Amino acid sequence: MKLKIVKIGGKILEHESLLSGFLDDLSQLEGPKVLVHGGGQKASSLATQLGIPVQMNDGRRVTCEQTLEVITMVYGGLLNKKVVVQLQSRGCDAIGLSGADANLIGAVRRPVADIDYGFAGDISQVNTKRLTSLVDTGLTPVFCAITHDGNGQLLNTNADTVAASLAVSLSQQFEVELYYCFELNGVLRDPQQAETVIPHINKRYYQSLIEEGVVQGGMLPKLHNCFDALEKGVKQIHIGSAAMIKNDNHLKTTLSL
Amino acid sequence: MKLKIVKIGGKILEHESLLSGFLDDLSQLEGPKVLVHGGGQKASSLATQLGIPVQMNDGRRVTCEQTLEVITMVYGGLLNKKVVVQLQSRGCDAIGLSGADANLIGAVRRPVADIDYGFAGDISQVNTKRLTSLVDTGLTPVFCAITHDGNGQLLNTNADTVAASLAVSLSQQFEVELYYCFELNGVLRDPQQAETVIPHINKRYYQSLIEEGVVQGGMLPKLHNCFDALEKGVKQIHIGSAAMIKNDNHLKTTLSL
Repeated sequence: MKLKIVKIGGKILEHESLLSGFLDDLSQLEGPKVLVHGGGQKASSLATQLGIPVQMNDGRRVTCEQTLEVITMVYGGLLNKKVVVQLQSRGCDAIGLSGADANLIGAVRRPVADIDYGFAGDISQVNTKRLTSLVDTGLTPVFCAITHDGNGQLLNTNADTVAASLAVSLSQQFEVELYYCFELNGVLRDPQQAETVIPHINKRYYQSLIEEGVVQGGMLPKLHNCFDALEKGVKQIHIGSAAMIKNDNHLKTTLSL
Repeated sequence: MKLKIVKIGGKILEHESLLSGFLDDLSQLEGPKVLVHGGGQKASSLATQLGIPVQMNDGRRVTCEQTLEVITMVYGGLLNKKVVVQLQSRGCDAIGLSGADANLIGAVRRPVADIDYGFAGDISQVNTKRLTSLVDTGLTPVFCAITHDGNGQLLNTNADTVAASLAVSLSQQFEVELYYCFELNGVLRDPQQAETVIPHINKRYYQSLIEEGVVQGGMLPKLHNCFDALEKGVKQIHIGSAAMIKNDNHLKTTLSL
């Protein structure tokens, strides 16, 4: 049986009209589905209002105790419930979850090397049985990117990684397609030219794109993680704008082995 | 089969040591259980920090749009996940929920009479089938007191009422005991004397306590709602301190028909 996992970033969540259109499309997708959402600027703006310093390192948030509180409020509370209540109004039986709920996603606090990321978690296990049983009863899990260590500590976790880990886990039971929605229409051959989307990348082509220098910078770890998930059983991964989920023919980049 | 519903107020949530002890006790309770938590001062203090006016009327919060955001962050995010992650660390398979999640608690916005309570909800239906199926799979639902109207609107709801509505709903499948935990050891014959706890009140005795003027003020609507829940199938309701849940012989007031 097919299952779709959709990951959206903070940008969509911050624009009512974008979010509304996206949730229309998501609720009309047939078959079982899972949504993973990032956070966006709201956590940073709330932290600033509360006088909590926002520390980023290489695009990753350094999560002190107060920052974790803000993230738990914004991602786990405000954004997660906003998405759930709107999906419910569209007839989609959504349930909002963090990794702590039903012990769905276990993680370990990232070890301190050069940088102490604070309460940042690297995923160690997904409770596949429990997650599958929720999906099997017709629920649409909506995950914020918060996990836990099993010892009472919540951990801030990268939303792309949450989506990939869930995709690998659910591949045991389902034929999983993973959709990464972002601002562009896909992986671009020329980052300055929006129309240079590469429609399909397999593993061999991926290697040659790295050698050519087409895939570089922030796209390198992203694609590396995608191919890792494909090696672990995920059927296909699509990268593109949120519009791709309602139209199979929409411009996007599809990754497969 | 027996099921216990425990409602705790904001005070316990605000004191780490009280909360820790309570969660130890709760996780050791045998059999299926449901927790409902209130909010406490944290929402008000966050609102104040953000410059949002706190309006109370007769002990009930007037919920403007910004206040609802704060409540969703604090009750639905911060407090709910804090309880869930700590229960998980104690081996209790908790899942945090609002009434919007899995469409568990539907409500209607309170009609404007003398006072406009804003986004305040009165419960209209509980999704008993879904709730029972979650409990049957071994999960411990942890509810914050937020419901939804089915049209995309979250609603702030009284936590005592949430607990009573869930108790009535689950009475279709279970023999339900409802525990209301607060600062006192029970209903007091003399509010100035902590040791004057009335151990048992049935409906006839309740009427005479009203006539005597023993039950009055804020306790009147509370007990009225309790007897209403008992009429609708709840087996017993206990009122007392959180310590009552681990020891059947602890001082408390038990209500039954």
